[in-house]
Amino acid sequence: MAERKFRIGIAGASGYIGSELMRILCTHPNVEIAWVTSESNAGKRVHELFPNLLGYIREEFAVWDISLCADVDAVCLCLPHGGAMAAATEISTRFPKLKIVDASGDFRSPVIDKWEQYYKTKHTAPELQKRFVYGAPEFNRQAIKAAQYIASPGCFATSLNLLLAPFAKHGELVGEVCVTGITGSSGSGNKPMQTTHHPERAQNVRAYKVLEHQHLVEVVPFLEGLNKDNDFDLFFVPQSGPFVRGIFSTAFIPLNNHKSMATFNEIVRDAYENEPFVQIVKDTPEMRLVQGTNNAHLMFRAQGDMMVGLCAIDNLVKGGAGQAVQNLNLILGLEETAGLQHPAGYV
Amino acid sequence: MAERKFRIGIAGASGYIGSELMRILCTHPNVEIAWVTSESNAGKRVHELFPNLLGYIREEFAVWDISLCADVDAVCLCLPHGGAMAAATEISTRFPKLKIVDASGDFRSPVIDKWEQYYKTKHTAPELQKRFVYGAPEFNRQAIKAAQYIASPGCFATSLNLLLAPFAKHGELVGEVCVTGITGSSGSGNKPMQTTHHPERAQNVRAYKVLEHQHLVEVVPFLEGLNKDNDFDLFFVPQSGPFVRGIFSTAFIPLNNHKSMATFNEIVRDAYENEPFVQIVKDTPEMRLVQGTNNAHLMFRAQGDMMVGLCAIDNLVKGGAGQAVQNLNLILGLEETAGLQHPAGYV
Amino acid sequence: MAERKFRIGIAGASGYIGSELMRILCTHPNVEIAWVTSESNAGKRVHELFPNLLGYIREEFAVWDISLCADVDAVCLCLPHGGAMAAATEISTRFPKLKIVDASGDFRSPVIDKWEQYYKTKHTAPELQKRFVYGAPEFNRQAIKAAQYIASPGCFATSLNLLLAPFAKHGELVGEVCVTGITGSSGSGNKPMQTTHHPERAQNVRAYKVLEHQHLVEVVPFLEGLNKDNDFDLFFVPQSGPFVRGIFSTAFIPLNNHKSMATFNEIVRDAYENEPFVQIVKDTPEMRLVQGTNNAHLMFRAQGDMMVGLCAIDNLVKGGAGQAVQNLNLILGLEETAGLQHPAGYV
Amino acid sequence: MAERKFRIGIAGASGYIGSELMRILCTHPNVEIAWVTSESNAGKRVHELFPNLLGYIREEFAVWDISLCADVDAVCLCLPHGGAMAAATEISTRFPKLKIVDASGDFRSPVIDKWEQYYKTKHTAPELQKRFVYGAPEFNRQAIKAAQYIASPGCFATSLNLLLAPFAKHGELVGEVCVTGITGSSGSGNKPMQTTHHPERAQNVRAYKVLEHQHLVEVVPFLEGLNKDNDFDLFFVPQSGPFVRGIFSTAFIPLNNHKSMATFNEIVRDAYENEPFVQIVKDTPEMRLVQGTNNAHLMFRAQGDMMVGLCAIDNLVKGGAGQAVQNLNLILGLEETAGLQHPAGYV
Repeated sequence: MAERKFRIGIAGASGYIGSELMRILCTHPNVEIAWVTSESNAGKRVHELFPNLLGYIREEFAVWDISLCADVDAVCLCLPHGGAMAAATEISTRFPKLKIVDASGDFRSPVIDKWEQYYKTKHTAPELQKRFVYGAPEFNRQAIKAAQYIASPGCFATSLNLLLAPFAKHGELVGEVCVTGITGSSGSGNKPMQTTHHPERAQNVRAYKVLEHQHLVEVVPFLEGLNKDNDFDLFFVPQSGPFVRGIFSTAFIPLNNHKSMATFNEIVRDAYENEPFVQIVKDTPEMRLVQGTNNAHLMFRAQGDMMVGLCAIDNLVKGGAGQAVQNLNLILGLEETAGLQHPAGYV
Repeated sequence: MAERKFRIGIAGASGYIGSELMRILCTHPNVEIAWVTSESNAGKRVHELFPNLLGYIREEFAVWDISLCADVDAVCLCLPHGGAMAAATEISTRFPKLKIVDASGDFRSPVIDKWEQYYKTKHTAPELQKRFVYGAPEFNRQAIKAAQYIASPGCFATSLNLLLAPFAKHGELVGEVCVTGITGSSGSGNKPMQTTHHPERAQNVRAYKVLEHQHLVEVVPFLEGLNKDNDFDLFFVPQSGPFVRGIFSTAFIPLNNHKSMATFNEIVRDAYENEPFVQIVKDTPEMRLVQGTNNAHLMFRAQGDMMVGLCAIDNLVKGGAGQAVQNLNLILGLEETAGLQHPAGYV
Repeated sequence: MAERKFRIGIAGASGYIGSELMRILCTHPNVEIAWVTSESNAGKRVHELFPNLLGYIREEFAVWDISLCADVDAVCLCLPHGGAMAAATEISTRFPKLKIVDASGDFRSPVIDKWEQYYKTKHTAPELQKRFVYGAPEFNRQAIKAAQYIASPGCFATSLNLLLAPFAKHGELVGEVCVTGITGSSGSGNKPMQTTHHPERAQNVRAYKVLEHQHLVEVVPFLEGLNKDNDFDLFFVPQSGPFVRGIFSTAFIPLNNHKSMATFNEIVRDAYENEPFVQIVKDTPEMRLVQGTNNAHLMFRAQGDMMVGLCAIDNLVKGGAGQAVQNLNLILGLEETAGLQHPAGYV
Repeated sequence: MAERKFRIGIAGASGYIGSELMRILCTHPNVEIAWVTSESNAGKRVHELFPNLLGYIREEFAVWDISLCADVDAVCLCLPHGGAMAAATEISTRFPKLKIVDASGDFRSPVIDKWEQYYKTKHTAPELQKRFVYGAPEFNRQAIKAAQYIASPGCFATSLNLLLAPFAKHGELVGEVCVTGITGSSGSGNKPMQTTHHPERAQNVRAYKVLEHQHLVEVVPFLEGLNKDNDFDLFFVPQSGPFVRGIFSTAFIPLNNHKSMATFNEIVRDAYENEPFVQIVKDTPEMRLVQGTNNAHLMFRAQGDMMVGLCAIDNLVKGGAGQAVQNLNLILGLEETAGLQHPAGYV
């Protein structure tokens, strides 16, 4: 209790990921929020924008200023894609020892030209990118613990990684891997637009960015790095669903002819049996049972030469702020689960 | 106007498909509802059970009795799966010329042993099954027009057929075809159960009957019948979504090496350019734009060796009562679209 | 059948009310859509904006021009509040015999200063306002039939009128009348904003414009005009609900001491027993049973000195485009229900 | 940290209130769950029924047996209405010093004949009822702290109390007080039924038990006990909304002529300024901002002689298991807020 708490700054705290990060950190036992920034809300008290945090956070939104970093142990970047590159460059120059967890897409992909193509932006910090470790704790834990800079994965990317990386690690991804994923409206952020306009979203399902979602530029290199001996193609169709939180992904994974389903079950067990935030469920993941939590529920089943994998996560938590805190815990040397153990409601 | 209207009886009218059939037929220009039956609601006025039909249907629910059939031009069976076998047998014996459109699963599959396995029931009328034509008008129109008995397709089956049958007709289904489909809660019928309990459904996505949904026993033989020269495997993962009406299906279809996407586009155009209820859309189908209608919206896109097909329908209309009316129109020699042309709302 | 159809122009057709008006009129037996205008979508085909109308409307959106009016029997104005004043003034000058149904708020209130206060706009056509009849057919039918210009009521206003006007007609509104009404998100129109942003609306209920909703400036004068001999105060709390279509209103109406509930029931029966679009239901209105239709479901119940009235309508139909068509039918001398008789689905 | 935790038993833990109680208590710093009972799930692990609690609770559901009570500091009763009477009688006889928090309706009303009429059951423990203190901490805190037996209020009752009790304490409830409240589907419990069948609930609003909801038998006596010098009538219309969690209530409270709104604001401030779980908000409560929490958000506004009060709570937390824990904390001498301080998400 008398232990010093780590002081954390949050840059870009007025979006949904920022708001979730504050929600989690404000009751985290080993961390305190030192400051939060938002250009558009500077001077407002946090609870004026987020009344759900009334009584939990007293801070005002500050304007980003590099000098804020003098006083903290780590910075979480929740800036819009593109914004993190500038901030991280500034931090790395002025405070070369400060730790960073970046929740944006800026540093997730080592394949800069692909990144530039999918994000439609010039990457301004390709050298710095090389110093970022991809924050997928189930597969990269030791590297994360040793790292100074973490690129926390995207929401769809997290569900694809959880479904595919265990097999990639054994070189078992072959042929054509097909995945659909349906996401809630909170994934689109807090700025109203036509596809999140309630009358048009509330009873709708649609696809978007068919076969060309930007999370592919982080998932494919990551899986290829693990799956050294074999080739595969990844086809991904993202969909928008009429709910607020959650991603439910379905993967069709060709069974490598040389392997049986028993082998695949063993691979899954090995991958996840000691993971604090991954549970293998019996019948089917149910999205509502992970909403608000850092948990991922998975199921695998095979028929003939095909395995189906199912995965449910909360896009803003395991697919966003929760995984960022998991990474933060690891780079600060804290218990990996600290601040993240609140069960979901059953309904 | 002075033309006689066809008289139609509806057996098993108290379920959701029956209620939709009444909704459509009560404003159909060439048809009148002669009687409707429901064992559990016998004696009740239709609008007591379905207040939405107040002012549109004056009938009471009758108890099923074969003598009702003396007076009608056709019978629509909306009985539970299993119940249609008995009724159709009775009708075919006593009124051998009467036309039947069956909305249940009983006569959809010629592969009786598979049917018995998936429906967990003994099939009691396998000979009669052979006289039923599968009511997929986009692919079977001439046979339907000439038929006396129609087995109207299932909801998921309709979306799978629309996505895959055009290619099957050209023998282009090869390899492993993978499909996900997400359905609304109305697909589970009007009897409350845990998976349709609002607190547990309203913010949930889950899978069920993974790789073993009963609609496979109608779809696979139908596609195989079309796709004579090639083999394919069909893997289907049905999902439950937090909405009431609609199915959104996503198919991953390997492109036959000998064919280009251009060829495939031509196949799609040939299949659908004159179809009154199928529209090829530009970006993505949107489920809400087909809700309440008999329309199917489709989109196809390819990358490398893979084509993705997307399909949105209303499970109770194109996937149920609407397609039944489309089939009814065809066997009665009416305009195929009669009674089915009401646009959806935009929201 | 050989009868000429009335030609109707729709100004401002790209909003939700405009889209609903097109949805209804495109299958109306006695009417054809002559033209539709939208400044921001000029040149686009209607179905490009509203794919639900593909196959039903071939028109392009035109730019508003007074010369369009040369060719039509009536014009429906679905312009934003404020815009109808200018258009109606222009029409009345250039085509002094043309009929107008205005769906905006501009001409609904004879109390111009109150109107200006609630709508925060200068009223530029107060003289013209006097020539508009308030389009509440259940209470104003004869005046509507004889009128040239109709101001079609607002959505909340329609539900308040239906709950209170029968009693006002008998001078029975006394004391403090309290009403809550909860509305779907489509009531806010097609422009995305924070309160209709799906993540923030989908699981929320909130109040807004507490005691000061602008529909009071049409309802209060209308009811006062009917309720000549007594005074009453009207307190109204509008609420936003997590659904797309519909309004559910609850009125607490003090029973005048001199009258019994039996008398009140008689008043209700007299008011509505021959109304084609109003049904008195037994237990409770259910919003979903009127969605998509022009129907209003009502129930009244008393205890001690208080009567409770409940009302469910579709805000875009009976509270918008449907009632506008009902008014259009009346001023054109058509059957009042023409084009408006499509039952809702049960789910 | 070395402090002993209080041991708590939960009888009837397989319903939604029971599941919420477990969700809250499993991370409560000063309490441990000793046992949980469920007749229908006896022998099952808690997480088999409630997978959201996997990793948080290891217990199996036991069959209720009075000997379980030997080992605990307090028992929470989450039995169905009617069931708590028997259990509490047995406990009070065999373990006369054991503390009880009852979440059912059995002991909430001192007016036994009214209770029997509204609950349609014979009350079998009227003497024991007198020993229960009504667990509304904002108004009864000292009595609760001193009590052995607590009857924790109902969900609607909690929102009515919060809206009306501050005025009752000053004798300011006069005339006719009218309230509407809309509740989520979780309020109906975990057993599927027609009104919670997703297809029929998901886009619906309806009223039920108009003017005769059973929570009136606890609210009216409670308010009358506070509001000694004046008479009032309470008219309450409960409604079902298309969401899972939450109650939004709207009260119309006649302003006593002798008092100004300023006085009423002072009454509100006095009542709530030090309350840990009640916040007065500026514009409107928003239901989603209290979902999952023990908070109540309120707003009051007046016009002429009428005040409007708005209240949002989570029906399962502040209106159920959360308030039960608040009461448990008080009778155990713990910090009132212990285990209850988790902010809601913003979306």
